[in-house]
Amino acid sequence: MRMYDLIRKKRDGQTLSKQEIEWIVRGFTDGSIPDYQMSALAMAIYFRGMTSRETADLTMAMAASGDMVDLSSVEGIKVDKHSTGGVGDTTTLVLAPLVAAAGVPVAKMSGRGLGHTGGTIDKLESIPGFSVELTEEQFIRNVNTIQLALIGQTADLAPADKKLYALRDVTATVDTIPLIASSIMSKKLAAGADAIVLDVKTGEGAFMKSREEAFALAKAMVDIGTELGRKTVSVVSDMNQPLGYAVGNALEVKEAIAALNGKGAPELRQLCLELGAWMLVLAGRAPDREAAKAQLQELIETGAGLQAFKRFVEAQGGDPAVIDHPEKLPQAKRIEPFPAEADGYVSRIHAETIGTCAMLLGAGRERKDSPIDLAVGIVLTKKVGDPVRKGEPLAMLHINDESRLCEVRELIRQAFSVSPQPVPRLPLLYGVVTSEKTERFF
Amino acid sequence: MRMYDLIRKKRDGQTLSKQEIEWIVRGFTDGSIPDYQMSALAMAIYFRGMTSRETADLTMAMAASGDMVDLSSVEGIKVDKHSTGGVGDTTTLVLAPLVAAAGVPVAKMSGRGLGHTGGTIDKLESIPGFSVELTEEQFIRNVNTIQLALIGQTADLAPADKKLYALRDVTATVDTIPLIASSIMSKKLAAGADAIVLDVKTGEGAFMKSREEAFALAKAMVDIGTELGRKTVSVVSDMNQPLGYAVGNALEVKEAIAALNGKGAPELRQLCLELGAWMLVLAGRAPDREAAKAQLQELIETGAGLQAFKRFVEAQGGDPAVIDHPEKLPQAKRIEPFPAEADGYVSRIHAETIGTCAMLLGAGRERKDSPIDLAVGIVLTKKVGDPVRKGEPLAMLHINDESRLCEVRELIRQAFSVSPQPVPRLPLLYGVVTSEKTERFF
Repeated sequence: MRMYDLIRKKRDGQTLSKQEIEWIVRGFTDGSIPDYQMSALAMAIYFRGMTSRETADLTMAMAASGDMVDLSSVEGIKVDKHSTGGVGDTTTLVLAPLVAAAGVPVAKMSGRGLGHTGGTIDKLESIPGFSVELTEEQFIRNVNTIQLALIGQTADLAPADKKLYALRDVTATVDTIPLIASSIMSKKLAAGADAIVLDVKTGEGAFMKSREEAFALAKAMVDIGTELGRKTVSVVSDMNQPLGYAVGNALEVKEAIAALNGKGAPELRQLCLELGAWMLVLAGRAPDREAAKAQLQELIETGAGLQAFKRFVEAQGGDPAVIDHPEKLPQAKRIEPFPAEADGYVSRIHAETIGTCAMLLGAGRERKDSPIDLAVGIVLTKKVGDPVRKGEPLAMLHINDESRLCEVRELIRQAFSVSPQPVPRLPLLYGVVTSEKTERFF
Repeated sequence: MRMYDLIRKKRDGQTLSKQEIEWIVRGFTDGSIPDYQMSALAMAIYFRGMTSRETADLTMAMAASGDMVDLSSVEGIKVDKHSTGGVGDTTTLVLAPLVAAAGVPVAKMSGRGLGHTGGTIDKLESIPGFSVELTEEQFIRNVNTIQLALIGQTADLAPADKKLYALRDVTATVDTIPLIASSIMSKKLAAGADAIVLDVKTGEGAFMKSREEAFALAKAMVDIGTELGRKTVSVVSDMNQPLGYAVGNALEVKEAIAALNGKGAPELRQLCLELGAWMLVLAGRAPDREAAKAQLQELIETGAGLQAFKRFVEAQGGDPAVIDHPEKLPQAKRIEPFPAEADGYVSRIHAETIGTCAMLLGAGRERKDSPIDLAVGIVLTKKVGDPVRKGEPLAMLHINDESRLCEVRELIRQAFSVSPQPVPRLPLLYGVVTSEKTERFF
């Protein structure tokens, strides 16, 4: 086999076989296929696409390029959840304990944040003592005893995907559905998931700006899961404003605790119920979405979800007292309100800008090795559609380092729009894609 | 400027500016732009194409990436000729002395052969003593005194093109018109041409298999020349059989001498008149093609073209006696006829296969560093349309090394077809592209 012939085949719009795709992934991972051939292939894929079968083969080959996590010693159907990334998206912190409380085993690998989106590990590390450094044995034991454990991604998880992503990132070949879908799914497969619930964000603050693209990605990932024998559901949800109120690590933990108490931003709670319901259905813990939602609602009302969160924090070395006393989380030195400049209705909150502002305050990383400040960030006090009076705060800035504050204030000003006329609330859920059908709510 | 943004721009179908193209070529040549970004850009160009302006800018930037030959001390309009490569194409050996005899200064850089096509330098080196190792001073002096000198390509001629071609060759991005056109034209420009006559071959033995592609390439190169202020004409000619009778180095020199004597294959002579006429017109040595052809015809009939060849050979250290005594050229040990298997008319002579056979006999290089045998090759005795009787030779094999002879005989058998019905001769010229118009003869 020659890489030249395979690049040419794809360039000419033909389909690569499973053997050819496996050969490419193996050669690229071991370095025998040079970057300059792989980037040419990626660009040819950008223009020619891949069939569902090719995409599934690529996913499996990348998943198998490094360690495959073996969760066979965990009882039950392991359901993983993944979001394509948004601002103020604290769903994992709410969902993981909630579905664990419903008896679904959650053996989760998470990442750190980069750019305007946050990472689950960073958020959890704002809890004093909390650590994701578990041995494999501890990890499995925790899942078997309290249904929930969370670790960082191992270095050798889908190394082919890691290498390919780095190359795509510098050759303008990131935004092509088959490569995005296979990248996400390869990591889920390598992490040992039996079933997968995906939250595909769409809107200005999401990677998929248009709804069409979001549904295409949602469908591509469901197709991969189906081809590879993993029950997969994709929910397409809104990212035209931050999901929750809080953007920043400790601030988001606080909001997750609020959500488990039945409070916090209604959009965050609604999305957690939707995604959680699918997780219960795929795990065989509920007959249908409605029954699953009722079950999750009850776990919130009885406090069982919050208790599961407390057990989880304690099992990973964190101080469980923060659950009842969130003020024990890191606090910023100063809280500054950002006031509305006129009476009216909030008509726009630019999610990416809010994420960037939180990063500039120190909550996120500009580069992979930037230090972060767990206490700082932004808490919205209004969402799109909310009425506001002149001088009333639209958001609260939680500040330690003031060096870029001036820039942040200016950006926040640009992020908000207030209209004199009433503005409808933004929809949250645009649709659901399962292996059987695509349901569009709008 | 960031290469990422420029790849993306081209990927999205936008046009790159002159400054951007110059920046890319400079960075790629000095190594600051890595191969993996350049190959992604080349693939994006494959799918998106380039405008005439972009292609001209790329050509000029690649021409300027190394030494630019300065022919200002040569009097007159320097017209260069280039062929896209064929089998049995000895036009340069005929044309160069012929137009020199007409007073057009010919300061030529040529290359060596690779694969199934031959190189002008290899052919000339079959003349005992002939050398292309001239100093720049000798080169210019020879052009000024006898109107003709020929040297090998310097290492630093359009190094950006050399590097890009090597990369395209392994990333399936060779066959895209803007990159082919700019590659050819960049070398002509760096070699100092004022005007350029291009022979674009089309057919089974050519790089451009279809006539449409050939005309597109012809037009792209004329557009580049026009944009850059070089009068340029492209002739589109047939390569569905070898051009001349001879394929092999000394054998082709013999045929060139025959052509300058008004003999040899009629197609070779006709193409030399056509290309030569354009060279005279562009050099301002004839008012139109018809007058130029008559002039060239006269130079053949009076023997002035042959005398110019003799002076040229002598000036570069070769034995001029070969002109009158071609038997002084290297001779193969054995000549074996390849007989027709039935009565009929030659209906097909697969040019690429004939070229491959000559290579297998030792006349060409399989790899860049293969040694070659200047004496061996194939001389056709029939062309398409010629009647033939069973047992009569279709070609003569000139053989030294017999190790692959069996394979050659089998390939030659496959290369020829003989039909019981009369077969028309193949057309030679399909059309001409000038800056004013595209003329198609069929």
